[in-house]
Amino acid sequence: MPVRIEHDFLGEMTIANDVYYGIQTLRAVDNFPISGQPISSCPELIATLGYVKKAAALANMELGAIPAPIGQAICQACDDLIAGRFLDQFPVDCIQGGAGTSTNMNANEVIANRALELLGHPKGDYAHCHPNNHVNCSQSTNDVYPTAFRLALHQTLGGLGEALEYLLAGFAAKGEEFADVIKMGRTQLQDAVPMTLGQEFSAYATTIGEDVCRLQEARSLLLEINLGATAIGTGINSRPGYSRLATEALRELTGLDLVTSPNLIEATWDTGAYVQLSGVLKRIAVKLSKICNDLRLLSSGPRTGLGEINLPRMQPGSSIMPGKVNPVIPEVMNQVAFDIIGKDVTITMAAESGQLELNVMEPIIAHCLFTGIARLSRTCRVLRDRCVDGITANREHCRSLVARSIGLVTALNPVIGYEMSAALAKEAMETGESVYDLVLRKGVLTREQLDELLLPENMMQPRFVQG
Amino acid sequence: MPVRIEHDFLGEMTIANDVYYGIQTLRAVDNFPISGQPISSCPELIATLGYVKKAAALANMELGAIPAPIGQAICQACDDLIAGRFLDQFPVDCIQGGAGTSTNMNANEVIANRALELLGHPKGDYAHCHPNNHVNCSQSTNDVYPTAFRLALHQTLGGLGEALEYLLAGFAAKGEEFADVIKMGRTQLQDAVPMTLGQEFSAYATTIGEDVCRLQEARSLLLEINLGATAIGTGINSRPGYSRLATEALRELTGLDLVTSPNLIEATWDTGAYVQLSGVLKRIAVKLSKICNDLRLLSSGPRTGLGEINLPRMQPGSSIMPGKVNPVIPEVMNQVAFDIIGKDVTITMAAESGQLELNVMEPIIAHCLFTGIARLSRTCRVLRDRCVDGITANREHCRSLVARSIGLVTALNPVIGYEMSAALAKEAMETGESVYDLVLRKGVLTREQLDELLLPENMMQPRFVQG
Amino acid sequence: MPVRIEHDFLGEMTIANDVYYGIQTLRAVDNFPISGQPISSCPELIATLGYVKKAAALANMELGAIPAPIGQAICQACDDLIAGRFLDQFPVDCIQGGAGTSTNMNANEVIANRALELLGHPKGDYAHCHPNNHVNCSQSTNDVYPTAFRLALHQTLGGLGEALEYLLAGFAAKGEEFADVIKMGRTQLQDAVPMTLGQEFSAYATTIGEDVCRLQEARSLLLEINLGATAIGTGINSRPGYSRLATEALRELTGLDLVTSPNLIEATWDTGAYVQLSGVLKRIAVKLSKICNDLRLLSSGPRTGLGEINLPRMQPGSSIMPGKVNPVIPEVMNQVAFDIIGKDVTITMAAESGQLELNVMEPIIAHCLFTGIARLSRTCRVLRDRCVDGITANREHCRSLVARSIGLVTALNPVIGYEMSAALAKEAMETGESVYDLVLRKGVLTREQLDELLLPENMMQPRFVQG
Amino acid sequence: MPVRIEHDFLGEMTIANDVYYGIQTLRAVDNFPISGQPISSCPELIATLGYVKKAAALANMELGAIPAPIGQAICQACDDLIAGRFLDQFPVDCIQGGAGTSTNMNANEVIANRALELLGHPKGDYAHCHPNNHVNCSQSTNDVYPTAFRLALHQTLGGLGEALEYLLAGFAAKGEEFADVIKMGRTQLQDAVPMTLGQEFSAYATTIGEDVCRLQEARSLLLEINLGATAIGTGINSRPGYSRLATEALRELTGLDLVTSPNLIEATWDTGAYVQLSGVLKRIAVKLSKICNDLRLLSSGPRTGLGEINLPRMQPGSSIMPGKVNPVIPEVMNQVAFDIIGKDVTITMAAESGQLELNVMEPIIAHCLFTGIARLSRTCRVLRDRCVDGITANREHCRSLVARSIGLVTALNPVIGYEMSAALAKEAMETGESVYDLVLRKGVLTREQLDELLLPENMMQPRFVQG
Repeated sequence: MPVRIEHDFLGEMTIANDVYYGIQTLRAVDNFPISGQPISSCPELIATLGYVKKAAALANMELGAIPAPIGQAICQACDDLIAGRFLDQFPVDCIQGGAGTSTNMNANEVIANRALELLGHPKGDYAHCHPNNHVNCSQSTNDVYPTAFRLALHQTLGGLGEALEYLLAGFAAKGEEFADVIKMGRTQLQDAVPMTLGQEFSAYATTIGEDVCRLQEARSLLLEINLGATAIGTGINSRPGYSRLATEALRELTGLDLVTSPNLIEATWDTGAYVQLSGVLKRIAVKLSKICNDLRLLSSGPRTGLGEINLPRMQPGSSIMPGKVNPVIPEVMNQVAFDIIGKDVTITMAAESGQLELNVMEPIIAHCLFTGIARLSRTCRVLRDRCVDGITANREHCRSLVARSIGLVTALNPVIGYEMSAALAKEAMETGESVYDLVLRKGVLTREQLDELLLPENMMQPRFVQG
Repeated sequence: MPVRIEHDFLGEMTIANDVYYGIQTLRAVDNFPISGQPISSCPELIATLGYVKKAAALANMELGAIPAPIGQAICQACDDLIAGRFLDQFPVDCIQGGAGTSTNMNANEVIANRALELLGHPKGDYAHCHPNNHVNCSQSTNDVYPTAFRLALHQTLGGLGEALEYLLAGFAAKGEEFADVIKMGRTQLQDAVPMTLGQEFSAYATTIGEDVCRLQEARSLLLEINLGATAIGTGINSRPGYSRLATEALRELTGLDLVTSPNLIEATWDTGAYVQLSGVLKRIAVKLSKICNDLRLLSSGPRTGLGEINLPRMQPGSSIMPGKVNPVIPEVMNQVAFDIIGKDVTITMAAESGQLELNVMEPIIAHCLFTGIARLSRTCRVLRDRCVDGITANREHCRSLVARSIGLVTALNPVIGYEMSAALAKEAMETGESVYDLVLRKGVLTREQLDELLLPENMMQPRFVQG
Repeated sequence: MPVRIEHDFLGEMTIANDVYYGIQTLRAVDNFPISGQPISSCPELIATLGYVKKAAALANMELGAIPAPIGQAICQACDDLIAGRFLDQFPVDCIQGGAGTSTNMNANEVIANRALELLGHPKGDYAHCHPNNHVNCSQSTNDVYPTAFRLALHQTLGGLGEALEYLLAGFAAKGEEFADVIKMGRTQLQDAVPMTLGQEFSAYATTIGEDVCRLQEARSLLLEINLGATAIGTGINSRPGYSRLATEALRELTGLDLVTSPNLIEATWDTGAYVQLSGVLKRIAVKLSKICNDLRLLSSGPRTGLGEINLPRMQPGSSIMPGKVNPVIPEVMNQVAFDIIGKDVTITMAAESGQLELNVMEPIIAHCLFTGIARLSRTCRVLRDRCVDGITANREHCRSLVARSIGLVTALNPVIGYEMSAALAKEAMETGESVYDLVLRKGVLTREQLDELLLPENMMQPRFVQG
Repeated sequence: MPVRIEHDFLGEMTIANDVYYGIQTLRAVDNFPISGQPISSCPELIATLGYVKKAAALANMELGAIPAPIGQAICQACDDLIAGRFLDQFPVDCIQGGAGTSTNMNANEVIANRALELLGHPKGDYAHCHPNNHVNCSQSTNDVYPTAFRLALHQTLGGLGEALEYLLAGFAAKGEEFADVIKMGRTQLQDAVPMTLGQEFSAYATTIGEDVCRLQEARSLLLEINLGATAIGTGINSRPGYSRLATEALRELTGLDLVTSPNLIEATWDTGAYVQLSGVLKRIAVKLSKICNDLRLLSSGPRTGLGEINLPRMQPGSSIMPGKVNPVIPEVMNQVAFDIIGKDVTITMAAESGQLELNVMEPIIAHCLFTGIARLSRTCRVLRDRCVDGITANREHCRSLVARSIGLVTALNPVIGYEMSAALAKEAMETGESVYDLVLRKGVLTREQLDELLLPENMMQPRFVQG
């Protein structure tokens, strides 16, 4: 296998000649055998590195900071990254020390060698296109990496937003389908008052809709970038105008309304946008977990649980109990939710650990966010496709539970007062009689009054009752 | 001690006649000897319960649901609560089972007995003003308690916002004061490139300013309330128009832009606004902890640390080491931040535990939020008053650290390239020579070039350097 | 009000003459207006500070480091603290900067002034008994505070252990009482196979018993102390033999098997024992929360839930729904559990923030542990007294649920195989028939076979079935 | 591609004939496209499933529950799994609904088809060896999966223990190497009193040693298994003696001291051992993160930080700052630590979500533990190999920091008292004089006294000083 020798200020290493990355990537691969997941497992990040490096090259050419032929080759190499090529040339581990320097250098080296190839030079012949002097010109890991990270997050969050909307639509459709299914509402797992199953499912749609709004807000914070901050926010080694030009170029390349942070010193160490985003992901996880808990409760049974709804039967549920089917789809969403919630703590600690001019823990933040968003997006779609869409209601059972419920007594409250209602509830509980029969038998109200007061349909919204 | 007998559907209890609360409060006091902190430890909540109950009474009178004389007495009793009277009549523990029912009944009973007193009836003579039938008319704990909770949160967050602004102003002033203090920036605790101490402190002001924005967003979500939802969101036992009238009355009483949730079923179980708020509080905590870590690092020493700044000396720091003074004020902020972050997990779990039509865990959410906000507000003010305002800079030391730093070599990069710069850095490191002397001795650049390139003041912003 | 003037190396302050604490306490009170909870809210800690200071004084006297008359007065003053006197002289806030220095100095000052009083000198006349030179002789906050903290923890954990045992006994008694109540077991909320309610409750007793063991292990780690480490573990300013003598004295005074850490440098910064303990408390919280979730599920209803058990009715459950009673006692345990779990994160972050020779965040760790343990202990007792002891079983309902369950089909598995069993289960589900009737009708097994195979009592343990 | 048709009670599916898994695996693959990581990414788990299934088969043969030829073929197929073969036949996603049923069925199907192959039957011809009736005979997912999970954990923890010991040895060696390097100790980042760098590193070894002990304790809890519990702990569908025989067989096959849980009902739902283990992993993470924070602090610089030690230079640290080298190895350990701590929250929530007879969330617990342990183990080795072993001390610098420190004044305390010492410290601070010179100039002590009192070597342990 033909090789080349590369060197940096720590020494030299032998590299197989067919690879596009160089010595710094190789060192990082050796240094970080941690998770086994290369950064290419988040292809969005490689593509956005391509965008950022291209925008920088365009600005550098305009300012005369790099020669045009080199700049053009760099741009072409970046286009390869944007198009998803060379993914296998990004072997650095997702979990790495160094605030993303290894990721940035991996990109610099691949782009430099690809540009050399395009320019007709052998790989490693960095005099003609240097990873640091040319590809990374006017840049530092500390502005390039967060910018690419934010762009990649922005893109993956678009996918999550769509997945949530998709799930929402599933719940909304069931809300309509079940609009006339009367059932008991329960608070604190105790019989409360009647409602419709449609109201139950519509509420799920509503709550996800609110989460989508919160997600959009958090996502929009990602459009503030620090490109041009270079090492610590002072813009050292960039020329006047570079930050503006590079950001404009990036805005044009991506079509996004990117803005430069008003305080680049702060922007270079601040991880607030990630903490905010993770908080919103956690909120979504909490809601989805609650909803799945409900689905599992409402479908509990088939014979000894609440049994109000049936989830579609996706797989045999037991290796020992024949015919058993379990709510495996909601269960997997619960687990993904717990994963997201745990990751929020990891992100919080990483964010708190920033020191002085930089937060070096960004790679674990990126790993948690990318992994979590991908899992959550997929599971939202699975939840609709393999669960929500196939849910059916046990209408008669729902109705019969209402009929024998004691909670109906609540509706008598405005007419006979809390205390007499409570006494009747207690007696019904003890005797096993229905509220209707008991009240009738005791002559507290007439049958006509009762028929009107205790009709579940009359309890679905406010109405005038003469006290 | 004169007593009265009260009863509910579980039996009867003897109550000292001078207390305004009744049997349900007493049961709750017996049931929940958990934290030792009564709900009156959050006086804002008692006041907002007064507002909500008064708004309900006004709507009920307008709709004819309760007699005007009783309604008027209730309103007057509510005014007492709003004015901060009767706080000692709210003994129920903050941490309680039951989704706030005990808090609501404590308010209902105190208001009823105070109204009875105003009407000239003995306490406990509930036929003339009943805790449930009159004070709680058209209401459920499940809409009243969250509404009062949100209003109280809204108010306490106003105080936190002011405390953050106060702290921000302290950092901003130091940012200006230190605008000409040249110092080394550090990334990953390693010497990076020069900046000013003013930039460092201005960044703290900037980041807190962003948090204030996020806090306002989260705070505004609290203005959406579910008053009129009653038990589960269907509005059972309220008359048509009640929700609108009660909310309008509350808007007028409080001067806040309150709106009714578009989906009252969802609003009755949803705790998303609290999770969002807690996420933002956590974000603030993360930032403040990071800043305090920086303050402790920068003031480390006095002789064997970084020693760039001096914190005001607030108390002797050691019982054994004479003259030692420690950064106790930043340290206490770190601890409060960890407290907030832990509470976020508690709130998350409580939110995830909601089931079906209600989240019964709201009391622990309220306890965490009220406690956390109060501690954070106080500590922000302490941080400015007892630390930030008195910080001084060791200007000469800062400057001298820059002069002997190797990081200065970065500025040579655009002229002599990354690799020669790295080689010079390595040599300087090994020999102990300054970068300036080394470059000069080797004849790489002229003294004039060096004077211009290595002047720290030239490294504070982008500039044109001929490569 | 008569006053005295005290000074330290930062200046002087005026102190009311009737207080026993001095200038350093006063500074700390001013510096830390954070939680409003004074350290005296944990009286165990004040008492154990008394023990530690007394042990130190005894060792100091034996080594000639302090004069005997002063030492004796100190011992007598410590006895006051041990006896719970002077609690109101400990006003420093629980949440404080400074690794416990303010707590230690508060104790030093109170002891010094009390000793001065006993010796016939006015308060503040420290030449005759000095807070630092005499009371704190051979000591540093960094060994005294953790030692007292550990002793206080050890004591409060004794109370928690007893509370857990008490709760365990309640569950065990119910386990026996319900030994013959046949009910359906449920996995994933789906009908599984029969068991007894006694088995269910006995399992709760078993699991708490295991937690008690884990708690004892974690508690025993607290017996390793660093007394004699002084400032950073080198024992500076203590005489040879001091550590051994002081520890022996403390062992004698407390009756505990205290040992000195083998590495005092490590012991001075290490917070592993607290992290371990908090992990165990979290484990206990997880278990108790799970159990309470079960209790709420099993008692759900009364008419539309599982309804297998009844919890004692502790208070009216709703301000709007008459007769409703909620599982408020399990609910409050859930909330306390979430509190403990959140505190574990706070403790974790505080522990992670230790730097070099000390962990300055111990006060927030102490605050979380003491608060959490107290709440958990109280709630365990409430859970037994106000819930577990009064639980009753709905025997007939439990049995009837078993009879109509499809899960019974599992017992046919060894005889007719998984696939035929599954087919029968499916058919029973669709037709609504009982498994028994269906199998009989289809002639798959004889009535005798069925009677034997499907008798729930036969499914409570392994047995031989001819396949 | 030749295919076969398989069916279960939900229908039939087409399966490529060369795969060993069957319809239930296929359904699970379709249902759970969540993480992209198959269960084979934890090969230890596949192997231990082989052990458990083999033990069950041996017990079943002995009890006559399955025919010997089938049993023998099953055993042989299990040996393949134990040997690491057929890993590619385990495609089910790590994150899955259903408490591990899909994992168990994946194993049942692969073993059955491999056994069929060995017996000379075509795959899918389950009459001759059935995944449920034969391979899973006397078993349920609910006892098999946790048992295999525990065995796999036990094994991976062995590796973690070794990695920790390896790291410990690295620190211990440095402790000896640096035994005579005098340096300043720091508390709260402020100069305290002298110590040796050897003491600093030895403390790291000590603390890791304690963690190894805690890990062994937590690991030993995993040896308690519930094999024979079957579905819910009652042992339904197993013959008398099965549990004992299967556990004995497993003990023999694995060489581990396995014991059967005393309460199989509890053992079937209890996840306490995982919570305990995760708590210990978190403790380890906290310690290692603290140590890495220290390493980064002590090596901060090279010119403007503490600069007491040098970490080996592993890779260029900056794309813009030539010659900069960062502490990337400690940084990656910090990140892995945060990952572990976040996972602890995930595990906690999963454990808390167990309901009634089973905890269905075990797969996410397994995923977190296996991933976390693997990462932690690898990073421990990296930390020693690529950081600790190469650390060097800046002896002269360390010593000079001590010489100019004011903390030395502490040693005068026993002789001249706290107050005079504090006054001297203050004056030295203000004038910039050394403590030695100042005390000498003021004539407080003689040069001989000072030489003896202020010799750093005299401050490394307790000693007698005449007060």
